[in-house]
Amino acid sequence: MPFVNIRITRDSATPSQKKALISGVTDLLVGVLGKNPATTVVIIDEVDTDNWGIGGETVTERRKRP
Amino acid sequence: MPFVNIRITRDSATPSQKKALISGVTDLLVGVLGKNPATTVVIIDEVDTDNWGIGGETVTERRKRP
Amino acid sequence: MPFVNIRITRDSATPSQKKALISGVTDLLVGVLGKNPATTVVIIDEVDTDNWGIGGETVTERRKRP
Amino acid sequence: MPFVNIRITRDSATPSQKKALISGVTDLLVGVLGKNPATTVVIIDEVDTDNWGIGGETVTERRKRP
Amino acid sequence: MPFVNIRITRDSATPSQKKALISGVTDLLVGVLGKNPATTVVIIDEVDTDNWGIGGETVTERRKRP
Amino acid sequence: MPFVNIRITRDSATPSQKKALISGVTDLLVGVLGKNPATTVVIIDEVDTDNWGIGGETVTERRKRP
Repeated sequence: MPFVNIRITRDSATPSQKKALISGVTDLLVGVLGKNPATTVVIIDEVDTDNWGIGGETVTERRKRP
Repeated sequence: MPFVNIRITRDSATPSQKKALISGVTDLLVGVLGKNPATTVVIIDEVDTDNWGIGGETVTERRKRP
Repeated sequence: MPFVNIRITRDSATPSQKKALISGVTDLLVGVLGKNPATTVVIIDEVDTDNWGIGGETVTERRKRP
Repeated sequence: MPFVNIRITRDSATPSQKKALISGVTDLLVGVLGKNPATTVVIIDEVDTDNWGIGGETVTERRKRP
Repeated sequence: MPFVNIRITRDSATPSQKKALISGVTDLLVGVLGKNPATTVVIIDEVDTDNWGIGGETVTERRKRP
Repeated sequence: MPFVNIRITRDSATPSQKKALISGVTDLLVGVLGKNPATTVVIIDEVDTDNWGIGGETVTERRKRP
């Protein structure tokens, strides 16, 4: 019954990478906690780099720096 | 003052269905807990089927199966 | 497959009120969107009044005012 | 190490306003709690006005009223 | 820079299982997306079974059924 | 109408620091975006150090290191 929310910057994952994240995190919860995969929900949120901040600046700015 | 976040797959709700969810969940909180509707906030997040996993696979894959 | 997160102040709901919220919001999603109740997840978070702010002050302070 | 999620209605913030929110909230956490800005993460979610409810109605409806 | 939130029922994980979840999900994000582990944040929320609903009933009720 | 969720490790904030976070972030949203403070909601979640991971390890482990 676990619920997992993964947040990454937008365009950093292809559809097949998203599948790998979803199956991988579900396997992890089954392996570590014995959870039922049938009711394990995983939601991936993709966030624009203008909307993600770390160290007080946006990822957009951070990536511009050499 | 309650805050409610509803997450559904994208395109599964029309604007009038979203209105019905918002008014319905607000009425529920007023009816069950006596909360003040004026400060009850409801946010609906619509998630791409590639980004929603259940049972270790994406909803996109799951819906392709007969 | 919807996921709903309800956030309320702590101690504002009894176990039977929580049951009513969970069954009520599940019924709403079934009624409005035709969602499958078996995979509809609802999580209630109870938040201390010191940790909930509205209008720039905590609910603890707000409730002290006559 | 704090994590902050700011949710606002879509189109209510320009890129420079988002920068100001991210740097402002990071400064606040450094100033009030002495947190390390390098590991302070801020994510801004922009929500369509059809998907944001308050007082039992959507922000779209609310803004139409004179 | 990813952020992961794992929600499970309370008391379903020991400290060493939590460590295994945190290292496992971090390894997964590094392996699948090449993310930097140093800025990968994982938060585990443990939720009382009275506060978690599935199929319209609480997990507390569900577990009582034979 | 903004909604802000601040997540910090448990015991890292006193009640007066929480007040300062709530009033500070509300002032920031009023100052930067002209939002109405009356409907600005701030929720602080305090997370056990066993439940917070960064760099693939829990904050509990990280703090034990010299």
